Amino acid sequence: MIKILVDAMGGDNAPAAIVQGAALAIERDSDLHIVFTGRQQEIQAELDKLKFDKSRVEIVDCADVIGMNDNPVEAVRRSDSSMMKAFAMLRKNEDICAFVTAGSTGAAIAGGQILLGRIRGVKRAALCPAIPNSRGGVTLLCDCGANTECKPVMLCQFALLASAYAKVGFGMQNPKVGLLNNGTEEHKGDLLRQETYKYLSQMEGINFVGNIEGRDIMVGDCDVAVADGYTGNIALKSIEGCGKLVLGVMKKEFSATLRSKIGYLFLKKAIKNMRGQLDFEKVGGALLLGLKKVVVKSHGSSKPQTIAAAIANAAHIYRGGLVPAVEKSLESVNLNSIVTESGE
Amino acid sequence: MIKILVDAMGGDNAPAAIVQGAALAIERDSDLHIVFTGRQQEIQAELDKLKFDKSRVEIVDCADVIGMNDNPVEAVRRSDSSMMKAFAMLRKNEDICAFVTAGSTGAAIAGGQILLGRIRGVKRAALCPAIPNSRGGVTLLCDCGANTECKPVMLCQFALLASAYAKVGFGMQNPKVGLLNNGTEEHKGDLLRQETYKYLSQMEGINFVGNIEGRDIMVGDCDVAVADGYTGNIALKSIEGCGKLVLGVMKKEFSATLRSKIGYLFLKKAIKNMRGQLDFEKVGGALLLGLKKVVVKSHGSSKPQTIAAAIANAAHIYRGGLVPAVEKSLESVNLNSIVTESGE
Repeated sequence: MIKILVDAMGGDNAPAAIVQGAALAIERDSDLHIVFTGRQQEIQAELDKLKFDKSRVEIVDCADVIGMNDNPVEAVRRSDSSMMKAFAMLRKNEDICAFVTAGSTGAAIAGGQILLGRIRGVKRAALCPAIPNSRGGVTLLCDCGANTECKPVMLCQFALLASAYAKVGFGMQNPKVGLLNNGTEEHKGDLLRQETYKYLSQMEGINFVGNIEGRDIMVGDCDVAVADGYTGNIALKSIEGCGKLVLGVMKKEFSATLRSKIGYLFLKKAIKNMRGQLDFEKVGGALLLGLKKVVVKSHGSSKPQTIAAAIANAAHIYRGGLVPAVEKSLESVNLNSIVTESGE
Repeated sequence: MIKILVDAMGGDNAPAAIVQGAALAIERDSDLHIVFTGRQQEIQAELDKLKFDKSRVEIVDCADVIGMNDNPVEAVRRSDSSMMKAFAMLRKNEDICAFVTAGSTGAAIAGGQILLGRIRGVKRAALCPAIPNSRGGVTLLCDCGANTECKPVMLCQFALLASAYAKVGFGMQNPKVGLLNNGTEEHKGDLLRQETYKYLSQMEGINFVGNIEGRDIMVGDCDVAVADGYTGNIALKSIEGCGKLVLGVMKKEFSATLRSKIGYLFLKKAIKNMRGQLDFEKVGGALLLGLKKVVVKSHGSSKPQTIAAAIANAAHIYRGGLVPAVEKSLESVNLNSIVTESGE
């Protein structure tokens, strides 16, 4: 049995979309058991609307809900909130494997590091979404917002964390790691980038392919893009904005005239395929890497299918042994020289 | 008469695409006169293939061509290159209004600053592309690669330069300026962003609307996005990659089956409209802002239509008085307090 905690109150469509998503996940995976945190009555009301094996669901009642704009550090103290209660339970209960939340990213990062804790040796947890790419796979962008200011050793660890995720989550044997930069030449970027380039080149167990540019995230030839959280966030959001604009313009133009509406009828399946290939939510959310257990952060606007995918991915990654894999790769790589040299 | 210098040898399709583009521009604007720099024989051979009023074209022969990957600083010394010859002529000849090149960005930035020179008071020249947005207009992203490491005063100047371009180039009365950041709250980002936020809030003549996220470049509500060159480059390239992937997947899916091919026939015009709205090359290239004359940097892969648009835009901006507008706004804004406080 795989027991997964789910924050029933996180996100814009909670608790309905969360409960529905969990029900879908349970139907698809006979080994799954879900523990919801949140307001019992509200969750129960949603459960009552659905038909599935409810013996595989529990509710841990908590009255408080952390808002999307609440201060993350203050949020950590709210121990009766659906998110922080979950982090505390994750730490205490050995039989709980993973946690899925669509709540505040900042609160999840703070709660994850403070209440659950990092894997021994990990400097900072990192947020790592899987972005669809032109090879039909995904590029893991790490970090994407957890750490605004970084030192070289942190970026090297992000390479290591995301490489482990690439192997465990996507079966990549020897994931190619690129350093997100403003050009591909070795000397490019600021001091942080130049130093990190040097260290990544020397790191064993990392398949470093050099600097990559923003366009390489989606149309390049690497599996992991390493960035500080500020830069990763800018890249991710820029991509989101572009995708939204392109699909918005397409929708408008394809319904503008009778002629285009007819064309759309013929292309319905092709457009569905297209959307499938460009789906940011295939795996349901971004991983919060470096923590002692698997934590998936879904988008606040997630619908049931996305939550179901996030739960399935959490189970998949737990089964693949992400945390032990990270522990092992941290042991085998000597980051001490970087730590000393860069004054961390 | 408006006399514009054109680097006939810059870019992947030179000199054919450049000469053809210039011919198109001349046909569209009866006031235009073009001076090509480059290898006379090659340019003449291209001219001989075309029919237009060649009395409005001159060639300044120079043997050298700067490659896309040549070291920018070393390139500046190559005074017989088509690009550096042009910058020297721009400085010397009062009757030359502007310069268009599809050559190396790095070399153009170096040559522009060293050979042509900056407007008095401008700390650094900045590269500023116009990115299509969801309002049917453009968002000016400044800087986008010229300055990897920045101080607050530079970012404040980028706001000022791009605001002038927004007014002169696009007729925006009171362009909204956003600071590209990893969140919209005031405290977001690193020290550079936090300090810049403070200064931009106080700057007269700048319509500062606060922090913006990457997605706001294309689907937000600002006209100018201010960034250091490193971040701006990541955002721009991430957007490019996303656009390329989406259009690539669309092309593949829309030609995958007989059914989708039929649909495509009906949607041909809609897709053309769509591409028009998402066209990055509407104005032919990015402006190199802060220099003593108008300089447009077109993409290396530019086709004749793009070069023609770049030349037309250069003429439009010269006529609008970009350089005097920048001089005037520099005079009216007191940046000294920022310069002192931030130790620049």
